[in-house]
Amino acid sequence: MFKKILFPTDFSDVSRKALEYIKQLKGAGAQEAMVLHVIDEKELAVLSRVPDHYSQIIAHIEKDIAKVMAAIEAELTAEGFRVQLIVKTGRPLTEILTTAADEKVSIIILGSHGRSNIGEMLLGSVSENVIRHAGVPVLVISREMQQDA
Amino acid sequence: MFKKILFPTDFSDVSRKALEYIKQLKGAGAQEAMVLHVIDEKELAVLSRVPDHYSQIIAHIEKDIAKVMAAIEAELTAEGFRVQLIVKTGRPLTEILTTAADEKVSIIILGSHGRSNIGEMLLGSVSENVIRHAGVPVLVISREMQQDA
Repeated sequence: MFKKILFPTDFSDVSRKALEYIKQLKGAGAQEAMVLHVIDEKELAVLSRVPDHYSQIIAHIEKDIAKVMAAIEAELTAEGFRVQLIVKTGRPLTEILTTAADEKVSIIILGSHGRSNIGEMLLGSVSENVIRHAGVPVLVISREMQQDA
Repeated sequence: MFKKILFPTDFSDVSRKALEYIKQLKGAGAQEAMVLHVIDEKELAVLSRVPDHYSQIIAHIEKDIAKVMAAIEAELTAEGFRVQLIVKTGRPLTEILTTAADEKVSIIILGSHGRSNIGEMLLGSVSENVIRHAGVPVLVISREMQQDA
């Protein structure tokens, strides 16, 4: 049930907390962790304004990501997980759903920041859309306390 | 992290599936399961049309619920859980959030039916609102495959 975990992470504090839950699931049969970071293509759009620096900035971002991913891999490996690191560029929701389906994961574990604006309120947050469409169980770790609770 | 689980159940197939995940979490440190069934007050409204039969019907419903709850208790006890059964009448979302807060549960595990109408689309399903407001991790077990995926 918890064998193959997909862990989409944006490296935030709440993602960090989700990682602790993944470790704890080792005792419930978790064996494999796929760590997925999606570079949001919307956030890259601004780089089209500085075409001369594009590849330099991308290289810098990718280097930073690789470093953080390697640290997560080391942590999970130390707990006895088989780890696979995946970095994609695109829409986070789409990439999470595609990876979950292609890799036939048992469960998705992710941190959620809650809602920040009316657009998200209407469309649903990434975590809500993952739950709606993934077709596998989803464990959502939220910030300590929701301000709107 | 998984020590004290709140399991709100409507006794559906997808709730049944959630129960299997709870059992599996024993290995990850789960010790206590609070099984909560909320009798939706909206569904009782129709009974005001048959005041003469009200108490008889309620007694019948409560007897059925007690039977199913006892079966769940037996299953979880057999897995080594301390079990507490709770039946409340009210709005499911409110009762779930109140119980989670009052009992300081570690995690909420529930089945989700997905969305059924535009009203739910705008307001969010019970599981989505639990995630937004509970302030504790929520594991959502969905139906096998979402039709709208």
